Order: sequence, then structure tokens, then C-alpha cells
Amino acid sequence: MAQIVRFGVSMDAELLAAFDALIAAKGYPNRSEAVRDMVREAIVSRDWEQESSPGVAALCIVYDHDKADLPRRLARLQHHHTREITATLHVHLDEHNCLEVIILKGSPGKLRRFADQVISARGVKHGKLVMTTTGKHLH
Amino acid sequence: MAQIVRFGVSMDAELLAAFDALIAAKGYPNRSEAVRDMVREAIVSRDWEQESSPGVAALCIVYDHDKADLPRRLARLQHHHTREITATLHVHLDEHNCLEVIILKGSPGKLRRFADQVISARGVKHGKLVMTTTGKHLH
Amino acid sequence: MAQIVRFGVSMDAELLAAFDALIAAKGYPNRSEAVRDMVREAIVSRDWEQESSPGVAALCIVYDHDKADLPRRLARLQHHHTREITATLHVHLDEHNCLEVIILKGSPGKLRRFADQVISARGVKHGKLVMTTTGKHLH
Amino acid sequence: MAQIVRFGVSMDAELLAAFDALIAAKGYPNRSEAVRDMVREAIVSRDWEQESSPGVAALCIVYDHDKADLPRRLARLQHHHTREITATLHVHLDEHNCLEVIILKGSPGKLRRFADQVISARGVKHGKLVMTTTGKHLH
Repeated sequence: MAQIVRFGVSMDAELLAAFDALIAAKGYPNRSEAVRDMVREAIVSRDWEQESSPGVAALCIVYDHDKADLPRRLARLQHHHTREITATLHVHLDEHNCLEVIILKGSPGKLRRFADQVISARGVKHGKLVMTTTGKHLH
Repeated sequence: MAQIVRFGVSMDAELLAAFDALIAAKGYPNRSEAVRDMVREAIVSRDWEQESSPGVAALCIVYDHDKADLPRRLARLQHHHTREITATLHVHLDEHNCLEVIILKGSPGKLRRFADQVISARGVKHGKLVMTTTGKHLH
Repeated sequence: MAQIVRFGVSMDAELLAAFDALIAAKGYPNRSEAVRDMVREAIVSRDWEQESSPGVAALCIVYDHDKADLPRRLARLQHHHTREITATLHVHLDEHNCLEVIILKGSPGKLRRFADQVISARGVKHGKLVMTTTGKHLH
Repeated sequence: MAQIVRFGVSMDAELLAAFDALIAAKGYPNRSEAVRDMVREAIVSRDWEQESSPGVAALCIVYDHDKADLPRRLARLQHHHTREITATLHVHLDEHNCLEVIILKGSPGKLRRFADQVISARGVKHGKLVMTTTGKHLH
């Protein structure tokens, strides 16, 4: 079972006031949650930098489905990575443009290479790989 | 109908060799596609900075569905933003952890504020807002 | 005089262990200093985003001093901004390449526009604007 | 001697118009220079990611010189890295706050670790490591 511990942080009163204003603007219920979020973010960044453990990522692309036989090429590329791809969400933005979010799980290096291949494909207008976490060990 | 134009870029031979190595590593079919990708990325970044036109974004969060009545709170928060939310994809990462990707459309400021509210919620372990594009005018 | 206050942060023991490993790797003397750094970084980022108060920045450029009459053009550009420029450090990287760091003080918008002008100049190979703080109110 | 080559880029007319507006706003003299800047930026980013070759960096810190014996501790830290440090620029921001820019040359990993040590020091309020280039092979 999860065990909650408590530690003290000392801070100049003026800095704390600025912090309180910031977390109020962002909607945090309290300082602990804001500090935990910053800590988790720092840990997730470092995990991706060090490529130490399997990560979870979402690859977001916008493309024109009429272009360059793209749906078939994207489907083929994805079928070569079925072990890494968990699910794909497709949204029809307008008559031509599609947004696709591909959920990935695996080693950071592999996910980055797959993202490079998809983003570099002709007809893909914009692409971003969002690196997040399995959530394990991040309570 | 789209009209394709062509322009020349002059470059030192050594810089071009380094560029060619980079785009080969990323899988680009040719230099034009790589240049177009960099141009589109610069335009999308600027559009979000200037908050000039409606954007498309994907909010990716990882959370523990057992925590703090979170599914109900997230559902409520989302139902207050049905005009901005197009679709939501939910993936069960393990017994406790969920990945949710929320597709958003609207003014950059509004999407950022909604993301702040979701990410700051107690129980949300990690969150990132990916800012992308409607694809319009970005051929 | 500065007044130090203290507040408690509650955290899951496993997350705290990961945080402790991270701050040990980075060399922090204790958790308070690491938390204060994250808080100050969040405040500085937000100040630059909102362009609310005058900022301090360092513009770092690398250029070839033999190219395109660059030293004269850079000098002229800088002399049009003497109110914003505090000091400039010049390092001779090799026979051709120079690194110049220009310290700037002023409104975020003005500093960004000046940086755009310098970075876009012909002969400037690489440029980055580092946005930092006057240090005031950030104890 | 440097050899200039020329290659063609094909682009949709509407995308090119948006690109032209962007580079005019940033002050680029022509499209070639804007494309070269994007290419050089992509190469520098990749070099730092892959830690493949020695880099040049500027570490920018803001600190209170009255705090925690900081000038002596920073001097000592810097004297342990004289092989990496080329020069240091110091600006007195106000009665208490100092901005220091430390120019570094060496392996990316070493420069990052040195930056971590300085930024984590008690009394350093804000710190950023700007990763740039020796300028070699980047014409």
C-alpha cells in the first residue's frame, strides 16, 4: 500500500506569495499537488533523456488524407509497429485534414525513430511526439 | 486548386551534406519535404504564440482512476467544455493507470486554461498539451 | 528583511525516493533548494509568457566575422539598442568563428524583436535568446 | 574554400506566402538565409542530443552575491573546471543581484553536469544552459 510521507520546505515569504499566485491561476487545490506535479514532470523528463525505462508516448499528426497515398502508407508503417502501438484515434478536422493520435509504448529510442518516420512522410503537415509515462512508481 | 511553386536555396556544400545526413536519418524522401516540415513547424509555433487563430490541440494525461474521485471530476470538467472537446481516447495502461488523450479545438488561450485545470487536478500524474494545427492553409 | 516561512509537502514515499535520487544526481544540497528552483523557474517562465514585467536576457550568437560585413552590421544594430544592451562578451572560438553574448534588459517583446533581427542577419550561424530574471522578488 | 551549391524547393503557393510573411516579420533578408538558419538549428540540436562532438555553451545564472558564501563557492566550482571554461561575464543587476554568463567548451555530458552543479547551488536563483556550436562545419 502507498505510504504518504511529509517533509518541510522553507521559502522566502515573497517567493511563496508568488508561488501561491501561480498555483491559484493554474487551479491547483494546494501547494503539495503543485510541488508533486513539478517533481513528476522532472522525473519523466529525466527518464526520457536517459532512455532508461520503457515509456508511453502519444504521436499527434495532422495530414491530408487525399495526399500521396498517405492513408495506405501510414497504415503500412503502423502495421510494422504493432508491438509498440496500443491504439489510434482519428478525427476528421475538415473535408481534407485529419488529426491522428497514435498511442505508443516501448523503449524511448524506438518510439522516437517511429515518430521520425511518420512525421517525415510526404503529406504529413505537422507532427509532435509527446513523451509521457506508464504512471508506475509515480504516485 | 493548389498551385506548386519552386524557389532556389543556396547553401554551402558542407552544410548541405550535414543536412542531407540529418534528413536521411529521419527518413525524409527529399529535401523539399524536410524544408516544408520546418516551415510548417515555424508557422504553427508562431500561430500559437500570437494566439491569432483557432488551434487544434491534444491534451495527454496519465492518471490513477482510483484516486480522489478523479473519473467523475474529469468527466464533469470535460462536460463544461463540450464546445472545445472533439473526442477523447482512453487507454488502460495497467490496473491503476490510465492514459487519456483529449482532442481540443478553439482559441489558444481557452485551450491552455482548460489544460491547466485538468493537469492541476489531484490524481493527474502527468499532463502535456500538444499544440498542433487545423491543417488549413498549411499545404 | 527577508522572512523565511515553512510549509509542509505530502508525497508518496516512492515518489519522494525518486525525487531524492534526482536531486542527488543534480547536486542539490537539500529538497527545499530543489523545490525553490522549480518554483522560481515556473515563475520566470510565466513572467516571460505574460510579458508582464521587464526581463533580463542573454542573446548568444555564433558567427563568422569574415562574412558579409557582419561585425559592422552587428555593431550598428547594437548601437540602435543601447538602452536595452548592458554589456557584450566576445569570445574568439577559432580563426573564423566568434561567440558573442549580449546581455539585455527591457520589455520581453522588445528583447524578442531585437533577438529576431540579430539571429536573422546573414552570417549569423546560430542564435538563442535565454530568458532569465532581474532576480527581484525571487528570493 | 567554401563551395556554394544551389537546390530547388517546391512548395504550395499558400504555404510559401505564409513563410514569406514569417521571415519578413523576423527580418530575414531572403528565403535562403531563413532555410539555412532552420537547417543549422536542426543540426545543432541533433549534435547535442547525440553528444557526438564537443559543444560550446553559455551558462547564464542569476544570484544574490550576499547569499550563503556564494561568490567563493562559485569561484571554487569554476576553478575545478578551468579546462571547460573559456570566459565569464559578470553584470551587477542591482545592489544584490548578479547575472553571470560562463562560456563553456567541451563534451556535452560534462557541460551538462557542470551546469547542474552550478544551478543547484544554494543562492543561485535561476539558471539556464544554452547549447550552441563551435561554428565549425556550419557555414
